[in-house]
Amino acid sequence: MAQHATSAALIDGKAIAAGIKNQVAGEVRELRAAGLPIRLVAVLAGQSAAARVYAENQARTCTEVGIEYSLRELPQTVSQEELDALLRGLAADKTVTGIMLHMPLPPQINAQQSQYAIDLLKDVEGVNPGNIGHVVYGHSIIAPCTALAVVTLIESTGISLRGAEVTMIGASRITGKPTALLLAERGATVTICDINTRDVAEHSRRSDVVVVAVGKPGLVGVGHIRPGALVIDVGINRIAVMDAAGKETWRTVGDVAFEEVRRVAGWITPVPGGVGPMTVAMLLRNTVRAARLVYGLEKPFGNSGPD
Amino acid sequence: MAQHATSAALIDGKAIAAGIKNQVAGEVRELRAAGLPIRLVAVLAGQSAAARVYAENQARTCTEVGIEYSLRELPQTVSQEELDALLRGLAADKTVTGIMLHMPLPPQINAQQSQYAIDLLKDVEGVNPGNIGHVVYGHSIIAPCTALAVVTLIESTGISLRGAEVTMIGASRITGKPTALLLAERGATVTICDINTRDVAEHSRRSDVVVVAVGKPGLVGVGHIRPGALVIDVGINRIAVMDAAGKETWRTVGDVAFEEVRRVAGWITPVPGGVGPMTVAMLLRNTVRAARLVYGLEKPFGNSGPD
Repeated sequence: MAQHATSAALIDGKAIAAGIKNQVAGEVRELRAAGLPIRLVAVLAGQSAAARVYAENQARTCTEVGIEYSLRELPQTVSQEELDALLRGLAADKTVTGIMLHMPLPPQINAQQSQYAIDLLKDVEGVNPGNIGHVVYGHSIIAPCTALAVVTLIESTGISLRGAEVTMIGASRITGKPTALLLAERGATVTICDINTRDVAEHSRRSDVVVVAVGKPGLVGVGHIRPGALVIDVGINRIAVMDAAGKETWRTVGDVAFEEVRRVAGWITPVPGGVGPMTVAMLLRNTVRAARLVYGLEKPFGNSGPD
Repeated sequence: MAQHATSAALIDGKAIAAGIKNQVAGEVRELRAAGLPIRLVAVLAGQSAAARVYAENQARTCTEVGIEYSLRELPQTVSQEELDALLRGLAADKTVTGIMLHMPLPPQINAQQSQYAIDLLKDVEGVNPGNIGHVVYGHSIIAPCTALAVVTLIESTGISLRGAEVTMIGASRITGKPTALLLAERGATVTICDINTRDVAEHSRRSDVVVVAVGKPGLVGVGHIRPGALVIDVGINRIAVMDAAGKETWRTVGDVAFEEVRRVAGWITPVPGGVGPMTVAMLLRNTVRAARLVYGLEKPFGNSGPD
């Protein structure tokens, strides 16, 4: 690990994400020039305002890099069978190269059952349980975007994950556990902490890398971090703060007490501008990967037997 | 954790497995009486002698508990397409309630691609990447047998996994990682060590539970274990030893230096007679679970949204 500096080096997720976005735009142009357009279909079931805002942002981001984006909307009352049939239809449709299913879903829908109906190769968010299982099997086809964002940000610093001690704080299905698995796949020794962990700091203090994905502002303080360690903050929390004039405003913060932790850490991601923009970049990269898989330009599986 | 005794309590996998086998036999009788037979089809591709011996043992075990077992053999030259088509045919066949695919497969076959063709509900070994992914998602449909065996043996002692510190030594696809995930699902704080880990003993010495699945005799010694800890030995190794008369014989040992570790551990599984028979029992239990899912007597999914 690096020498301990007086203040952590910032890992600029925004800048790294911008680089990846440019790269993706180039790949999309190349594919299109070869007569292989990238067509992402997003499915939005029900009336979640948050999902709608997310879908609109996504449409804009895709358009910027040349990915054809379309939104299929289904009513709040859609049945599991109808939704799954639509997803299977998109799997069979040769003009569609990517599929994503917006969360949250109406309460009558089982999310994982529908995610299993997303074609394994077109699953740009890497949420099909089959894709999660391939991460466990050590050769991911398409991995979840946030987990990929974390790994890419760590690797951007040049540190080696092989043999590194990592504490993953937060064991959620779509972030904590897949991230831990991707890190383990790269040879890291990973400890997964959750709400039941007796002493999180005992683990994080001995770690080279600490990843936090809980959703609790200020959860990780200076007492959690070893001098020189690398800290990745996945949390995105909106909190109310007073400005200088005594007026209440909203601010976006992570799970890490940034100002105190940056004084001991070797590297740290800011919030905003760290994991957030990288997750979007990984979605774009996955969308290109999916298209290359669908068009047969890449193979989903490397050589692999059981172990 | 229990008080440290002068010698570890043995966790008798053979006895616990025998109890589960009796329970399974009762459930199979009940289902058959209701006109719902359990039919397991095993697929053996190629000429592996080890797979053949395993298949014969399995046929006998299934027959003992009333499960109808049949073996479908394919030549060493079988193509990926032929094998996957057979597996998909078994998925569609309403008279088949369970499917398993013997390892190893011929070199032209990608194992995970074929495993993905095993019906999610009929996958009695829990090896379909989709089933592995459901373990990550925290609500397994059918989990891998060895991982289930480890968890069941730990829980047989009455200790609570919630908040327990666990070191998983070995990060293999089908044992180490799924076991770590099942333990995390139950609220344990799990550290996954692999060959790159700088100091395995540093982790295992602070742990309440140590699970070892590497395949290296004597890997874990007394210096790895905290007094009173629970030790699960997944390793099955055949070693040559001299008997009293100076004659060489073969003996089955685990990854743990049993005689020295039992002096400090609180509980320990023997090899043979620990995880091995429990893994067979879990396969039988999974075969009943699969049939109940296929017949609609159990639901694959509980309530679940994304998190």
